[in-house]
Amino acid sequence: MEQLLQHLKENLTEDQVTTNKTVRELHGRDETYLAESLPDVVVYPKSTADVAHIIKVAQKFNTPVTPFGVGSSLEGHIIPYKNGITIDFSLMNKILEIKAEDLLVKVQPGVTREQLNKELKKHGLFFTVDPGANATLGGMAATNASGTTSVKYGVMRDQVRDMEVVLADGSIIHTGSLATKSSSGYHLNGLFVGSEGTLGCFTELTLQVYGIPEHIVAARAVFPDLSDAFQAVTSILQAGIPIARVEFVDEASIVQLNKFSDTDYPAVPTLFLEFHGNAEGLKADLAFAKEIMEDQGCQEFISESDTAARNHLWEARHNLAYAFAHDYPGKKMMLTDVAVPISELANAAIYARQEVDKLGIPGGIVGHVGDGNFHSILMIDLDNEEEIRKAKEFNKNIVLYALERGGTCTGEHGVGIGKKPYQEQEHGASLEIMKQIKKTLDPNNILNPMKIVDID
Amino acid sequence: MEQLLQHLKENLTEDQVTTNKTVRELHGRDETYLAESLPDVVVYPKSTADVAHIIKVAQKFNTPVTPFGVGSSLEGHIIPYKNGITIDFSLMNKILEIKAEDLLVKVQPGVTREQLNKELKKHGLFFTVDPGANATLGGMAATNASGTTSVKYGVMRDQVRDMEVVLADGSIIHTGSLATKSSSGYHLNGLFVGSEGTLGCFTELTLQVYGIPEHIVAARAVFPDLSDAFQAVTSILQAGIPIARVEFVDEASIVQLNKFSDTDYPAVPTLFLEFHGNAEGLKADLAFAKEIMEDQGCQEFISESDTAARNHLWEARHNLAYAFAHDYPGKKMMLTDVAVPISELANAAIYARQEVDKLGIPGGIVGHVGDGNFHSILMIDLDNEEEIRKAKEFNKNIVLYALERGGTCTGEHGVGIGKKPYQEQEHGASLEIMKQIKKTLDPNNILNPMKIVDID
Ligand SMILES: Cc1cc2nc3c(=O)[nH]c(=O)nc-3n(C[C@H](O)[C@H](O)[C@H](O)COP(=O)(O)OP(=O)(O)OC[C@H]3O[C@@H](n4cnc5c(N)ncnc54)[C@H](O)[C@@H]3O)c2cc1C
Ligand SMILES: Cc1cc2nc3c(=O)[nH]c(=O)nc-3n(C[C@H](O)[C@H](O)[C@H](O)COP(=O)(O)OP(=O)(O)OC[C@H]3O[C@@H](n4cnc5c(N)ncnc54)[C@H](O)[C@@H]3O)c2cc1C
Repeated sequence: MEQLLQHLKENLTEDQVTTNKTVRELHGRDETYLAESLPDVVVYPKSTADVAHIIKVAQKFNTPVTPFGVGSSLEGHIIPYKNGITIDFSLMNKILEIKAEDLLVKVQPGVTREQLNKELKKHGLFFTVDPGANATLGGMAATNASGTTSVKYGVMRDQVRDMEVVLADGSIIHTGSLATKSSSGYHLNGLFVGSEGTLGCFTELTLQVYGIPEHIVAARAVFPDLSDAFQAVTSILQAGIPIARVEFVDEASIVQLNKFSDTDYPAVPTLFLEFHGNAEGLKADLAFAKEIMEDQGCQEFISESDTAARNHLWEARHNLAYAFAHDYPGKKMMLTDVAVPISELANAAIYARQEVDKLGIPGGIVGHVGDGNFHSILMIDLDNEEEIRKAKEFNKNIVLYALERGGTCTGEHGVGIGKKPYQEQEHGASLEIMKQIKKTLDPNNILNPMKIVDID
Repeated sequence: MEQLLQHLKENLTEDQVTTNKTVRELHGRDETYLAESLPDVVVYPKSTADVAHIIKVAQKFNTPVTPFGVGSSLEGHIIPYKNGITIDFSLMNKILEIKAEDLLVKVQPGVTREQLNKELKKHGLFFTVDPGANATLGGMAATNASGTTSVKYGVMRDQVRDMEVVLADGSIIHTGSLATKSSSGYHLNGLFVGSEGTLGCFTELTLQVYGIPEHIVAARAVFPDLSDAFQAVTSILQAGIPIARVEFVDEASIVQLNKFSDTDYPAVPTLFLEFHGNAEGLKADLAFAKEIMEDQGCQEFISESDTAARNHLWEARHNLAYAFAHDYPGKKMMLTDVAVPISELANAAIYARQEVDKLGIPGGIVGHVGDGNFHSILMIDLDNEEEIRKAKEFNKNIVLYALERGGTCTGEHGVGIGKKPYQEQEHGASLEIMKQIKKTLDPNNILNPMKIVDID
């Protein structure tokens, strides 16, 4: 350990390397039910060269390396179960270049989503991917994050044009180019996005951005029951209305949201929607959507074009997980995260709601339903082993339900440690290929070991 | 050879295995300037099991295997320079399932784009990716094809939800799921799409489809010179108009197109455009686009909402390469295919046009300019070595121009053999990673050897 620290400090200053217990604890747990485990040391690189140095030292000592953004991931991604070095990217937080005419931006991995959008706004631009949390772009790329706007603009993988990556041997590669499209070579962008720190550390990202839409209207549609709301979503998607956001929030979640966010939305199954476009087209989309909703039993459809009202609505939606957490102090979250084909969505959500009701654990159903992706949020008492067992069983049942219908165990949160048990069932023989790729790129298994795949 | 045939025929019928010279010749060259080389045998699998059998036999005899769709690729992809077995997928041409409510379709790899769209039309659906040629879906996935509509709907990689792939050892995997999005495991869909038959044979594809847009308007905008036309494209993109197609056709190409397609478009630099949407939104987009065009010097802007007129326009555009070929019988094509960041597009196209003029070889500039991707089409006399040399030099200069500006050597056609010399310059250290992936998945290098990367 002393030797390791000494080697790290050969190229890093004192304040870039710490073994402080409090700091290590902050890097040894997340917001979820998963058990904690601390890194031996936390390092704060300031440059790509620093990262390469750290990884070379880690190789020398055969020590695990866990990259860390802000630790908002939800499947134990950043918990170093084999201890070792955690690389915290918070000092690599510069927006390096905004190429407005190319609709591109180059950032360091520690830049957060809100920081980026604040800067882009000055240019009339925005970055589309929007998980609730104020995550880092490096972390978002590593989990292939997505969120409320992905139904229109796509997921993180769709935004990444190029990344600089430090590999397991400390060498540095680029995964793409600045061209909008390419058929050159194997698609490394796609492979590294979503690799959760297990194949390399991202040290620079070039991302696609969009012009802020000319007109934006948000809407709230309330339904007598969950199944009507889901049928409405399915109909909207099948009609091809180019919706920018469509979020489902169930009754229990609306109650929680009203408490936390100073809203008084009726406590019934609700869709939060958003439309982007030119004034005329948007009006027509909105009218068509309203018609479809009403055909599906929507009882009230309230649209908001005022910016403050819109922001309030989305803030309330985004704070939902925190609203639960706030109301159950001491408890920890478990989120299911399956995505299913659209035709299976309504039944899957009904099944999930029924199962939550059976559990007797407080929880809600919410989701990015335009992508067939929904979450059950459960608040778990970690001192209650029976509750943990039941919650895990529930998570498993939801996953199996989705997999049996051609879905995925994780629509956006990623595998980490929590979804590893389902990789074999989801991927079958291709899991072996994934393992071979991991072995090829990280033969000593030092990069975030135990996440996504096991290779020993 | 006799032994190889005997083994192949153990599980295949007589008519599935041929060494007929004419058939081998049809599988030994493409439409381009690249030298021919014949396979020893051509096989026609009817099922995934057939493909697995063929590949296992190939492994046994350490014989190269080259997958073949309709052979419309443009960089020598399907030319078996090491001979061996060509797998022609034309008998695996069934549309297996149309899941209209999920906007998904499952096809065998030999289904062609036109065949698929004809069937989808009955359901009010269409498949978006549209290279000019009537290529197979397997071939299109293998080259990550794209085309006129990619500016709105994305490239082939964006449409592939799942593939069944037979690997180099004859084992069978799936690369994805039916979910719209997923963060589970490494992104094998992305890796296999664009792999040009070098990592496995695709035997089934599940693809995303779209509802046929409510309203479609095409337009033609004519410009006094090339640079104005390109500036107009850049402005349209930066304004965020959700354009569905924007194609550039230069003066020389319009001349060719008029001869072949029974049109009398003015022989000046022209943009072919298309807009999809609801009636009101589309009208607003069209008006805004027209305004931007006119600001950039557009002399005439003619829109066509009539289906026949629209189809005529796109047919003319799609037949452009054939228009050149038809007018220069005996000559062969060379197409450059770079893509550059939007801000570099106008200058790159001007540079290319100037270089074509210097060559003294007949040619035109066209392109999917909404993606920053353009082609120079040259018609080459293969008996004239000096001409071949000059054309290759030209291709190289265009590639280097693009690479120096952050672009790619191939926006859509792929690497094959023609763009292999530029892989190192484009990908740098990551080429080594690509080679390692190839070695891992195909250690004996039997799958389309000599394409994309060399590994010995
Ligand atoms: C309230 C709440 C709501 C959420 N909503 C969503 C949502 O809607 N959609 C969604 O997708 N997610 C959501 N999440 C999960 C989380 O925000 C995402 O997973 C996010 O991408 C994590 O980013 P981070 O910066 O916190 O990364 P971390 O949690 O720090 O790390 C995540 C993973 O990325 C790796 N990593 C981090 N930086 C790098 C780097 N530079 N190079 C290589 N690997 C790196 C880590 O090793 C780890 O495996 C939510 C979380 C919370 C708490
Ligand atoms: C006039 C003309 C215009 C064109 N315009 C465009 C355009 O706009 N955009 C564009 O992208 N391309 C264009 N192309 C190129 C060509 O159409 C595409 O590359 C297309 O994707 C090739 O499909 P194919 O079925 O002909 O495949 P082939 O040429 O037969 O094969 C292409 C590659 O795919 C591999 N392959 C084929 N089937 C399989 C399978 N089942 N499994 C694994 N690998 C397989 C082959 O080994 C080969 O490497 C054009 C070509 C022509 C002639």
